[in-house]
Amino acid sequence: MDSSSAGNNTPGPGELTQDVRDELATLRDSIDNIDAAIVHILAERFKATQRVGRLKARHSLPAADPAREARQITRLRELAENAKLDPAFAEKLLNFIIAEVIRHHETLANEAQGKGGTARDRL
Amino acid sequence: MDSSSAGNNTPGPGELTQDVRDELATLRDSIDNIDAAIVHILAERFKATQRVGRLKARHSLPAADPAREARQITRLRELAENAKLDPAFAEKLLNFIIAEVIRHHETLANEAQGKGGTARDRL
Repeated sequence: MDSSSAGNNTPGPGELTQDVRDELATLRDSIDNIDAAIVHILAERFKATQRVGRLKARHSLPAADPAREARQITRLRELAENAKLDPAFAEKLLNFIIAEVIRHHETLANEAQGKGGTARDRL
Repeated sequence: MDSSSAGNNTPGPGELTQDVRDELATLRDSIDNIDAAIVHILAERFKATQRVGRLKARHSLPAADPAREARQITRLRELAENAKLDPAFAEKLLNFIIAEVIRHHETLANEAQGKGGTARDRL
C-alpha cells in the first residue's frame, strides 16, 4: 500500500482523487472530440481552397488576395468576440491557415505555368 | 464600354467570366461558413481547456503535459490522413493551439498561486 494514502481516503499533496481524474478524463474526451471535428472541417476547407487555387491558377490570378484576407479577418474577429474566443488568437489562427493556403495556391500556379495549357485540363 | 470586351463576350487576358466569378464567390461563401464553424468550435474547445486549467491550478499540476500532447498529435495525424488533410499541417496547427492553451494554464496557475486558497473557490 502506498504510504501517503495509508489508513484514509484523503489524497496527499500532488495526488488526485478519483473524482478529479474522472473530471479530467471527461474534459479531455470532449477536447479530443472537438479536435477530430476540427480536423475534418479543415479537410473540407482545404478542398474548397484547392478549388479556389485551381481557378486562380487557370485564370492567372495572384495566389494571395490581401483585400479578401482583410475582410475575412475583420469578420472572424467579430465572430470570435461573440463566441467569447480571444479575437487576437482567432486572427493569428486564420493567418496561420491562410499562409498554408497561399503556399498551396503558389504550388498550383507553378504547376500551371510549368505545364502550360494542361492546367486548364485538370480543372 | 471597356475596349477589351467590345463586340463580343469573350473575356480578355486577366478578365474573369461571370461563371468564374460566381464559382469563386460560391467557394468563398463555403470557406466563410467553415471558418465560422471553426471559430465556434474553438470557443468550445477553450471552454474545456479552461476547465482543465482550473483543475490543474487547483491541484498544482503542471500547465503542460508532454505525454498527453504526444498522444494527441499521434491521433490527430492519423485522423488527418484519413480525412486527406496534410498530417504535418494538422500537427503544426495542434501545436499552435496547444501553445495558446498552455499560456492560459500558466496564467491560471499564477493566479492560483498569487491568491492562495481562493483559486479553489473559483472552480
